[in-house]
Amino acid sequence: MDRLKQLNDRIVSRVNLNLVEFDFHTDKFVEDAMDYEKMMKFYAFYGITSQHPIYFHFKHSNIAGSYFLGKCYVGRSSIYKSDIRGDELKRKGDIIQCAKEIPLVEDETISILDSLLYKTLVHSNSHNPETPEQFVIRNTISAHYANIHGSTLEGCFIGAFSTVDLMNLHSCIIGEFSYIQAGELFYRNIPPGTVWIRNPNFNFKYVFDKKIIDKYIGANSAHQPCGIIYNFVAEREKEFERLFDVVDLAPIDAPATSAVNRYAVVKGKSTIGDNVLIAQRAFLENATMGDGSNAQENSYIIDSRLAGHVITAHGAKIINSEVGYETFVGFNSFLNGKENGKITIGENCIIVPHTIIDSNEPINIPSNCFVWGFIGSMDDIKNQSISFDDFEETRDLLNVGQMTFSGKTSVFLHVFQKRIYQVLLLNGALFKDNENRGHAQDDQDISFNTLQPYRTGSSKGIYPSIRINP
Amino acid sequence: MDRLKQLNDRIVSRVNLNLVEFDFHTDKFVEDAMDYEKMMKFYAFYGITSQHPIYFHFKHSNIAGSYFLGKCYVGRSSIYKSDIRGDELKRKGDIIQCAKEIPLVEDETISILDSLLYKTLVHSNSHNPETPEQFVIRNTISAHYANIHGSTLEGCFIGAFSTVDLMNLHSCIIGEFSYIQAGELFYRNIPPGTVWIRNPNFNFKYVFDKKIIDKYIGANSAHQPCGIIYNFVAEREKEFERLFDVVDLAPIDAPATSAVNRYAVVKGKSTIGDNVLIAQRAFLENATMGDGSNAQENSYIIDSRLAGHVITAHGAKIINSEVGYETFVGFNSFLNGKENGKITIGENCIIVPHTIIDSNEPINIPSNCFVWGFIGSMDDIKNQSISFDDFEETRDLLNVGQMTFSGKTSVFLHVFQKRIYQVLLLNGALFKDNENRGHAQDDQDISFNTLQPYRTGSSKGIYPSIRINP
Repeated sequence: MDRLKQLNDRIVSRVNLNLVEFDFHTDKFVEDAMDYEKMMKFYAFYGITSQHPIYFHFKHSNIAGSYFLGKCYVGRSSIYKSDIRGDELKRKGDIIQCAKEIPLVEDETISILDSLLYKTLVHSNSHNPETPEQFVIRNTISAHYANIHGSTLEGCFIGAFSTVDLMNLHSCIIGEFSYIQAGELFYRNIPPGTVWIRNPNFNFKYVFDKKIIDKYIGANSAHQPCGIIYNFVAEREKEFERLFDVVDLAPIDAPATSAVNRYAVVKGKSTIGDNVLIAQRAFLENATMGDGSNAQENSYIIDSRLAGHVITAHGAKIINSEVGYETFVGFNSFLNGKENGKITIGENCIIVPHTIIDSNEPINIPSNCFVWGFIGSMDDIKNQSISFDDFEETRDLLNVGQMTFSGKTSVFLHVFQKRIYQVLLLNGALFKDNENRGHAQDDQDISFNTLQPYRTGSSKGIYPSIRINP
Repeated sequence: MDRLKQLNDRIVSRVNLNLVEFDFHTDKFVEDAMDYEKMMKFYAFYGITSQHPIYFHFKHSNIAGSYFLGKCYVGRSSIYKSDIRGDELKRKGDIIQCAKEIPLVEDETISILDSLLYKTLVHSNSHNPETPEQFVIRNTISAHYANIHGSTLEGCFIGAFSTVDLMNLHSCIIGEFSYIQAGELFYRNIPPGTVWIRNPNFNFKYVFDKKIIDKYIGANSAHQPCGIIYNFVAEREKEFERLFDVVDLAPIDAPATSAVNRYAVVKGKSTIGDNVLIAQRAFLENATMGDGSNAQENSYIIDSRLAGHVITAHGAKIINSEVGYETFVGFNSFLNGKENGKITIGENCIIVPHTIIDSNEPINIPSNCFVWGFIGSMDDIKNQSISFDDFEETRDLLNVGQMTFSGKTSVFLHVFQKRIYQVLLLNGALFKDNENRGHAQDDQDISFNTLQPYRTGSSKGIYPSIRINP
């Protein structure tokens, strides 16, 4: 196991060096998070499809239990039970719109070097105009259930259940359960529970009470999570391990236009409509998935009904809830309805990423609303939501509870709605008459190469290098 | 499936061209043998160990259900449910003894190009002094349960249940159930059921009655086998398919010095002694494996007891038998004892490859005997066996039944005994005090990468190219 330990030590020392001005040390996180026996136990898998460019190259790495799709390069890294999903990478010939149009000269690759990702999702594509063909993660340590979504990272520590969305970070620390979509950041330490969406036209910010973060994520001094949300996820982990033990599972009953990944858990009375995507490591129990709805990685839909075109973004949890048509439930949101305290959400709502709704009484959210932050009772709704109409009437500055918004509300609304349309399109929700194919159609019929480490000798735990080409 | 069909067609046309002077066509064999749906169903696997050089490279191929270990290259080939076992390949620095000593400059690789192997075992290492670092198979079609053992092949057709052992063949046809170990052959058509062992010092030949070959192998005009031995194997095929469905099986109870491959079937009351090797696709049912005994690929040991150091060579079947200490049971032998007609074999016997014993009365073979050919009753033993003592007294020429032997009996005996010692050594039977490690010790703790084909599109059935390095 010497080489594996050396590998982790080297990653730690590089990231510590990047974060030296914060006097921030990642040693203890890695020491506590990594269970070397488990890093031996779980195989990695690479998906083979005829719909995505095939390229997988890794060397000098451990990739235990991790899922790879599309073009991926991994060097000198530990990637434990992560999802590296390259089915939204840009293609050769695509044009990206920056100050001017840039045509891509080759298919984009996710490239991860000298990094340690722990149960992290890496998805989307590079939003860095400097490296449009390379979605780069370097010298970065990322903790449990973080989302690295289209974001270039260099020398960063990304806390548990945090999300870095469509941006670039250099030598930054992102606190637990923070959601950041803020262009480009250098040498920033973002406190836990910060929800921050910024572009040249607006600035949205909400910071959770420390008490709430402690209760729901509860990371200790070594950044190991232990709160309600982590416990919720940890309790269900065994159900995924079962899926690893069998090579071919009986496929879940679903229409021909829908994809249910074989590494998803689907149990109880669950029904799946047309154009539905159930991604790997999604968890459905007594879930009704209306046409064009999706359940992305690490999402949980339990005892709930989703009308059509509902987006359950990466890591979102929907329990005892009724969600209306075309409502968007953002990353890592926790909608924890109860049997006698159901959550009902109308149509066309935007549940901002990292929203927590957890009440013992029923919660009702009308259609066409923004919702954010922490809602512990119906009383909390007035400070944690706003109707689109009221929002659009706002001029310049809005303060609602712990949320501040400055800038153009109509642009903010438009950006969100455009993105929701894009997400539906990419996921295949709009597939009809053989047009608008998306993941729900293209991610069917994946076959998986499974990859194993050395089990003995000085390289124990390291995976032999592999290069897969078409 | 177009590319896969094109691939097979191209291999067929190349082999046909090589065999044009025999007016021999392989089209019908390939057409009948290949089930394209099955070529989609079974994954291939590559074994990762710290004991063998790691190198696996294939491209433009289908490798359904095939097992690879050690250094292997596969190009433009169909390898269906075959075992390509490179754990006896020579290593860099090894010296081979030919006319003069040749030191090897790199680790040897099995290299298979433009070939179609169907349930074939490829094992050992190149005995071709022209290519000591390359164990080469080119433009060759090989049928069900053939053994290509350390033999370079170019432009050949190898029939079902035949064995080509430690030699080189160029544009040859080997008939069903023939065993050939004869140096180098060019443009030869070896009839079915020929057992031929030749070197500069001796020449052993036995030809089975056509009736026996028809009954036990029974290949039709397209070289598809259908006799008793084929049926015996086909009836048990399902038990192996079960092993494919599960990623990690509970390990079979065995001493720490023994290896039981996870793709072996072990059932009933089977016990495994020290230093025992149970290879992939071996089948044990109520089998007692004495210390240092082995069960090689495609061997079956059923309701039988093997004393110590018994070698069950590739494809040998031992049923209702009692086999004495250090007896060698050669390739593809079929020892078909009955509940009321047990086969008892003494110590230190040599059951020549491709021997069939199938009687309704008990069969007893004393210690220190050669045994060959077809034995259907105790009466047949006199014409199909000879004691080592009687054999060594022979001068120049020996005719026993359908067997002819010419040359030096002592050299023949010595060559066989030396090989038996080598086989025991290589398989780890002689492991003691951490010396004489062999497969039984080195083939433990293998982890398997599993490899899958494209399931859709024009490349359906083709495997994406893969390169695995340390």
